[in-house]
Order: sequence, then C-alpha cells, then structure tokens
Amino acid sequence: MASLKIPANVPLPEVDSEQLHKAFIGWGTNEGMIISILAHRNATQRSFIRAVYAANYNKDLLKELDNELSGDFERAVMLWTLEPADRDAYLAKESTKMFTKNNCVLVEIACTRPPLEFFKAKQAYQARYKTSLEEDVAYHTSGNIRKLLVPLVSTFRYDGNAGEVNVKLARSEAKTLHKKITDKAYTDEDLIRILTTRSRAQIVVTLNHFKDYFGSSINKFLKEDGSEDEYLQLLKTVIKCLAFPEKYFEKVLRQAINKLGTDEWALTRVVTTRAEVDMERIKEEYLRRNNVPLDRAIAKDTSGDYQDMLLALLGHGHA
Amino acid sequence: MASLKIPANVPLPEVDSEQLHKAFIGWGTNEGMIISILAHRNATQRSFIRAVYAANYNKDLLKELDNELSGDFERAVMLWTLEPADRDAYLAKESTKMFTKNNCVLVEIACTRPPLEFFKAKQAYQARYKTSLEEDVAYHTSGNIRKLLVPLVSTFRYDGNAGEVNVKLARSEAKTLHKKITDKAYTDEDLIRILTTRSRAQIVVTLNHFKDYFGSSINKFLKEDGSEDEYLQLLKTVIKCLAFPEKYFEKVLRQAINKLGTDEWALTRVVTTRAEVDMERIKEEYLRRNNVPLDRAIAKDTSGDYQDMLLALLGHGHA
Repeated sequence: MASLKIPANVPLPEVDSEQLHKAFIGWGTNEGMIISILAHRNATQRSFIRAVYAANYNKDLLKELDNELSGDFERAVMLWTLEPADRDAYLAKESTKMFTKNNCVLVEIACTRPPLEFFKAKQAYQARYKTSLEEDVAYHTSGNIRKLLVPLVSTFRYDGNAGEVNVKLARSEAKTLHKKITDKAYTDEDLIRILTTRSRAQIVVTLNHFKDYFGSSINKFLKEDGSEDEYLQLLKTVIKCLAFPEKYFEKVLRQAINKLGTDEWALTRVVTTRAEVDMERIKEEYLRRNNVPLDRAIAKDTSGDYQDMLLALLGHGHA
Repeated sequence: MASLKIPANVPLPEVDSEQLHKAFIGWGTNEGMIISILAHRNATQRSFIRAVYAANYNKDLLKELDNELSGDFERAVMLWTLEPADRDAYLAKESTKMFTKNNCVLVEIACTRPPLEFFKAKQAYQARYKTSLEEDVAYHTSGNIRKLLVPLVSTFRYDGNAGEVNVKLARSEAKTLHKKITDKAYTDEDLIRILTTRSRAQIVVTLNHFKDYFGSSINKFLKEDGSEDEYLQLLKTVIKCLAFPEKYFEKVLRQAINKLGTDEWALTRVVTTRAEVDMERIKEEYLRRNNVPLDRAIAKDTSGDYQDMLLALLGHGHA
C-alpha cells in the first residue's frame, strides 16, 4: 500500500502549475508550496502538471526545480517528480556510472518492479540514453558479476500468480539450489538460470520448498558462508528483492539511517520510489524490526525542507 | 517491401466473414475462396475478420480453419491468419519442443524482428503458455548453446538508426571480435556480449569495420573453420540474421526448395512471416543468387491449394 496522500479534491493541473510558478518567482523560493503540491499528487497528476507547466510557461518544470533547489531536497523533489519509468531509467544509469556505480541498485530495480514496469523503465532508458540497459550493464561489468547481472536486467519475467506455479518444478529446483549452495557453487549456471528467468511467484514457492526440506532459508545458508565478496552480496540481494521486497527496503532504510552520517542517497531513492507503491508495508516492517516508527527515525536524522519532503511522502501533513 | 497484395477497395470484415462462413458450409470446403480473401488482407484486416467472425458466428475462425483444412495448406493458412506476435510466439514454442526443436528458428525470430515486435512476441508467448520464452529456452538448453541463446532471446536491443552508432566503439569491438575468432574462442564472453546486446545498427557498422580491417567478412572467417558443430552454425546464423536478413531468408528458401523432398515446414514459415515485411527484397535476392524467380521455383516444388496460397502471398493473383 502506498503512503502517498492525495487531497479529496485535487486542484486542476492549471492551478497547480500556477502555484508552482509563483513559488519560483520573486524573492527566494517557496519550498513549502512546492512540497504541499508535488508531494501530494500521484504519478499521473504530476505528469499532467509538467505538461501544463510546459504549455503555459514554455519551461520544463524539472529544469525550474533544478534551478531553484539544491542538495538533498533537490534530489528528492526531482526524483519524485519524474515519471516512475523515467526515474528508474535515471537511477539505473547512475548505477552504471563510474562515481555512482552501484550494482545493488540495478538488482533492486530489476527485481522489485513488476516485469512490465521494468520493461517500461528499459524503454525510457533507451529514449534517454540511446543505448540499451543490457549493453551498458554488459559492457561495464565482467566475470561473475556480469554473469549474474546481465540476465537479471535482460529477462522479461512472466508475471504469473500463485495459481500458475509449477509445484513439481519448484520442488526439483529447490533441490538444485540446495545442492549448488552446499557445494559453494554460487556462480553455477543453473542457479543463475533459476533466479534470473523464473517468475517471482515460481521463485517464492521454490524458496518455500527449500526452507521446508532443508530447515533454513536459502539466505541463511548463504550467510553461513561468511564471505563478504560482492558477488555473494548481490546474490543475496537478488533473492531478497524477489521474495521479500519489503524486508529488503526496510534493511536499506535501516542501514541508511543508522549510518554515521545518514546515507541520503539511498534514503531518497527508497522513499521516492516506494511512496506510491508499498511504503505502508515497509513502514510496518521497519517498526517491527526497529521498535521505532520509520517517520520518527527519519525525522531524527534529517532536517529542513528535505525532512518535510520525505515526511510528506510518508503520509504526513495535510493532503 | 511486402509482397502482399491488397485490393484497392477492401470489403468490410462483415462481408469477408460471411464469404468465409459460406466457404466452410455445404459440400466440401471452398479453398479458393479462403485464399482469395485471407491471402489478400493485412494483419489488421485479418484480425478484424477474426473478431467479426467470432461475434457473428460465435466460432473462432482459426478453429474453423483447423477443422476444414489439412496438411501443408492448413499450416500455411493458420500461420498466416495468426497475428504476427502470436505467430512468432507459436513458432518459438514449436522450436523449444522435443520433436520440432529448432534453435535456428529461435535465432531467426530473436534477430530479424525489430526489438519492439520481438518484445510483443514474448508477451504473446507468456499469454499463450504462462511461462516466459526466456525460462523455457534456458531450461531446454545447456552448455554453449545456452550461453548464446539465452541472452539472445532475453535482451531488449536498442532500435537505433545508423546516425546513433558509436563509431569508436564499433572499431574497438571489431578488433575484439577478430581476436576472439582467430583464437577460435567462439564461445568467448565478450564475443557473445557484443552480438547479443548491441543494436543492429551498431553491429552492422562493427562488421563493416571488421571487413575493412581484416579483409574478409566475419562469417568467412567462421566458415574457414570448417567445423560443423551446432554452436558455430548458430553463431553464423545470428550474424546473418542481424546483418543480412534477406540473404539469410534467401538461403533458408533455397535449402527448403532444393532439398530432396521440399522442406514445407521452413518454406511455409518464411513465406507467411515475410510476405508482409520484406518478401520483395528476398525475391530479388533469390533471383540474383539462383537465376530463377522464387515464385517459379516454388511453383515447381509445390502443388494444389498449398501452392496457390504461397503464390498468392508472394503477390500472384487478383488482389
């Protein structure tokens, strides 16, 4: 469930555009106004606002925001305002670049978005960057990381439901996974094949069989290895993103907040990409695991407009 | 250019449906009527006819055709009548099945369709079979064949034009390909990466650089190896389908027709999948290579309604 709160009577995009335009002109910027509008509109509404803004003021709203805002607040408002597919394309590109390289983010995008949404992000990536995500990831990686990441970003998974799972196959593939993992053959072809091509519903059932047969979850087996190499970390991330996305996002938030010096990069990414999707579930998970509500934890670690923006996306304030 | 001929005044789908319905009832089937209608309607028109037929007679036109027709003629009419994406899904499934297994057909579909069309075929595959093409191909292959085929059917290539090619990259990747091939490292990761992830336009420029630098085409280098193993055959097919699709289809037709006993399976597939796309170019290529027009060669090797259907799709008869 989304945490985003939208007013019962949403103003026309013409009105929103005018208010935003006013927020930019004159002495200083009216950040409160920007938050009160954009942080309470869904993706369709934001895209209407952008279209109307461009038509009425002959300027790209995103460029205006870029000019007027700065720092973490800017990144939060910009990421939020982008259309979801375009935002994922932007985040994916960032993750393949030298200074912002982050294979975990690629895994996150490839494994937590529904297949068709991920496909739309790949289309947006091509429209923006004139290359495919597949070729960029394949070109910028090598060895085992490439072996795992390239199929992960390439496959168009079947978006099946629990009723369409092949139970016999799940049983046999649970055994395959167990054998490979006890042999420490983490880069085995079949292990990668199963995790990168099967539908999410199929994988969830396979992992349940795994736990039933072998006593603990697959990620517990992987943790026992104790190794800290990047490949193994990514493998665990793949499994977590596919099977327990809320737990995965809870952990990213926990680590971002509890760090010495908050990791605003990750915090902004998770809040802006999940506010309209499953943030309520992530909040529950966060409270359960940390005995502190997520919004209180975020409020303690952030300040100013940035804090206001994140809390608004988490459901605070008047919609 | 398409070879399909459509009448200047296309009858309403209601009229076509009624004529088809008449062709099925009474004594025997009127095959000539079926050809005169279906073989002269484009994909959109055929799909309207199917919709109107279902509405007016409460029957699926494809099932009716299945009941009324048989043999090669049936396969030709059925494949032609299917929507292109659905037809590709059907052909791809056939290619992964035990008795009709044909990895070349998978390569053909993955490499000659524009990226978005291939994606739609993958969507149609999922709608029909409740699994992804990726997982089926990955599950039914192994070793080197899997290493090549899985990325090939997975990647959503960038559909760039010649103006968007990175020439510097093409030069460097031409050298990479040459090095791998002279080392006989045909299953090398980077060789596979280049051929399975780069855009078709990019690959064409890369292969031109290859020829300019090293004196002959990449496929000539591969042919000199003399080996007949399936992997190498597939690799050559990938390159041909990406860079010279008309030459590829010409060869499939030549081999289908010149066989002792025509290969109707391949003949029907190529004619029904290309009639609406580039059959005129394939015909030119065929004439150039064989000194015989394609339609004459087909007429010599086939007969009856099957022959009439193929020739109609090649542009014969009154539209």
